[in-house]
Amino acid sequence: MELEIKAKKAKEVARKLGVIDTKLKNKALINISEQLVQQADYVIKENKRDLEKGRELGTSQALLDRLLLTKERIEDMAEGLRLLVELPDPIGETIDVWERPNGLKINKMRVPLGVIGMIYEARPNVTIDAAGLALKTGNAVVLRGSSSALHSNKALVHVIQDALEQLNISKDSVQLIEDTNRETVEKMLKLNDYLDVVIPRGGAQFIQYVVNNATVPVLETGAGNCHVYVDKAADIEMAKQITINAKTHRPSVCNAAETLLVQKDWASDYLPELIKALREKNVECRGCERTLSLVPDIIKATPVDWETEYLDYIIAIKIVENIDEAIEHINRYGTKHSEVIVTNDKKNAERFLQLIDAAVVYHNASTRFTDGYEFGFGAEIGISTQKLHARGPMGLPALTSYKYIIYGNGQIR
Amino acid sequence: MELEIKAKKAKEVARKLGVIDTKLKNKALINISEQLVQQADYVIKENKRDLEKGRELGTSQALLDRLLLTKERIEDMAEGLRLLVELPDPIGETIDVWERPNGLKINKMRVPLGVIGMIYEARPNVTIDAAGLALKTGNAVVLRGSSSALHSNKALVHVIQDALEQLNISKDSVQLIEDTNRETVEKMLKLNDYLDVVIPRGGAQFIQYVVNNATVPVLETGAGNCHVYVDKAADIEMAKQITINAKTHRPSVCNAAETLLVQKDWASDYLPELIKALREKNVECRGCERTLSLVPDIIKATPVDWETEYLDYIIAIKIVENIDEAIEHINRYGTKHSEVIVTNDKKNAERFLQLIDAAVVYHNASTRFTDGYEFGFGAEIGISTQKLHARGPMGLPALTSYKYIIYGNGQIR
Repeated sequence: MELEIKAKKAKEVARKLGVIDTKLKNKALINISEQLVQQADYVIKENKRDLEKGRELGTSQALLDRLLLTKERIEDMAEGLRLLVELPDPIGETIDVWERPNGLKINKMRVPLGVIGMIYEARPNVTIDAAGLALKTGNAVVLRGSSSALHSNKALVHVIQDALEQLNISKDSVQLIEDTNRETVEKMLKLNDYLDVVIPRGGAQFIQYVVNNATVPVLETGAGNCHVYVDKAADIEMAKQITINAKTHRPSVCNAAETLLVQKDWASDYLPELIKALREKNVECRGCERTLSLVPDIIKATPVDWETEYLDYIIAIKIVENIDEAIEHINRYGTKHSEVIVTNDKKNAERFLQLIDAAVVYHNASTRFTDGYEFGFGAEIGISTQKLHARGPMGLPALTSYKYIIYGNGQIR
Repeated sequence: MELEIKAKKAKEVARKLGVIDTKLKNKALINISEQLVQQADYVIKENKRDLEKGRELGTSQALLDRLLLTKERIEDMAEGLRLLVELPDPIGETIDVWERPNGLKINKMRVPLGVIGMIYEARPNVTIDAAGLALKTGNAVVLRGSSSALHSNKALVHVIQDALEQLNISKDSVQLIEDTNRETVEKMLKLNDYLDVVIPRGGAQFIQYVVNNATVPVLETGAGNCHVYVDKAADIEMAKQITINAKTHRPSVCNAAETLLVQKDWASDYLPELIKALREKNVECRGCERTLSLVPDIIKATPVDWETEYLDYIIAIKIVENIDEAIEHINRYGTKHSEVIVTNDKKNAERFLQLIDAAVVYHNASTRFTDGYEFGFGAEIGISTQKLHARGPMGLPALTSYKYIIYGNGQIR
């Protein structure tokens, strides 16, 4: 009941939100960011309740840390909202305009999607990010966070709704579903009457569940089984730096590398040195048979390793005959996220960039740049691994659609 | 088995198709169009088998006519392919390019979707249209037509595959699923490993079935419960022409109008005249109570009429207080397809164009212009009524995605 009522309200308010002007939307973003800082103590108090419950339930320290809100983290969230103010408002933008021989003037205009259903795990900052991105793009948003962050999310949404109402913007623009039963998620995925899209954020298994059960269109964000391929003509220093950065800069995120592919001749010359460098960074290396013949004292990789997103200090290593075997391997096991070739051979680089089927393909750079801020988009709602609608880091335009406005003077066919 | 084998082959061939050059793709389109004309007798002979079976099963004359292939219709299909040759190739196009402060060069490039699953009813011309559009955009396509057109579709795909092989393009680029069991469609909708998108073409119920059962992303094409709203300041002649054109020019298509909304003051002055004109065109009028008080001898509309896509010489008529009631009604009962306001009041026109949530909104023109050719796009794969990815008439770009190609010189984070 709560879900249907709130989703219906979101649908109703969405029409008005779609046409409010940029100034008011920006004013609202600033007001939310200010209120957030002012009410930090209240938010932190509510967050403590989630943390206590988490400790009682024996939640891991890593998860508790993800859940934790501090003054500093709240200030970061507020800063994220302020950055959104500076981004151009995509809504109302004329994407294209042309006139037909019969005199019809066709205007392709950017409009909001309508109502976004956001389903996410743990991290409470997603609540603020999603609300800010939705507001800036004139979308209503229905948030369904995890039960472990319920008190934190309630407090954050409370702050947001107060800040909106102070500016006479309906609080139904940003709503939280407080019912944390699993069945609520299932219902949400089939709420085609009220939701225009659902965006899942979480682990690979959770996203798969959403894709398999949703009848509402899904923006699939994603799992990243990313590869670094070191080609025959690669510079050893560059290969070392990129591999180590892609693997160890932040192993728990989707744009971290999981498998290293190495061309056989380069491997003979330099792979032992590269493996040594990885191990010095505490990375567990799991190699194919040929890798083991060069460096015998590492773990043997099994087929499961090629498809595993470790999100940890582990890397799978495979020696390949040539670039085509590397491309073949990546297109088979990759998740269409971010893929890298390290080489000084421009022809091979182009071959790789063209033939790899992924959202982002790199020549001589780390996978870690697949990120809204790194692309210059500002905040992102996630990284899409599907091909429809939006691919790669999804900034503001990914939360928009368009409509055709046509001016005539009595034209008929 | 047939489905999985063919879909897997499609996936394999899709990678190669994505990088073949425009010249070869155009040559293939021309070769198919020529072969089609040359082998018209063979195609017509196979089409006769479908027609005979249809007659045995007592298929309606209207459906048999949709199924019928003649020399002239085959020539039209061939002409459609030749027109595709002239359209620009979207694949490989640089959509955007920029450089980041760290020196990374980001190139947003248009790429094919990969493998398109096309599921459609009766009309065999969809086989040629879909194959042509897929080929031009470098996509592989897996076709699943209806059993009633099986022999026709087999013949058409045979001609296509021969024409492709003559140019050394794999015949797996265009494949037909010959197994016409319903379960095959169900399996196809869940073939996420091989299909990048499914596009259903058919009645509203069939499309709903696809949306409710697919785990592969769907491009929803659509049902059109389209409205003409005649505002207070409308010209009577224009209102008459647009309403009659929108209703009667081709009642069986999705961009035909189904409901007429009329502002009450205008209705008092002119609605009887408009209804008279509609009835002279053999349109059955079903009116609300207020309409009946003006024109008593028409059928009374029930709530079901407001949501019905008649696709026939029937129109529902409702008198509204003002433009806001019209907008409210359309946003409630419409299918987000095509909506029209007839008025000389520019302010009201803008209000309608902004607040109606539909793919195409018109001021003073017929709904019948919602069409790829009328928009200047050339052939279309359907008209999208969803907001994700593509909205309205879907031409070549709707069958594409993009990828980010990034050039670095060793950048790490």
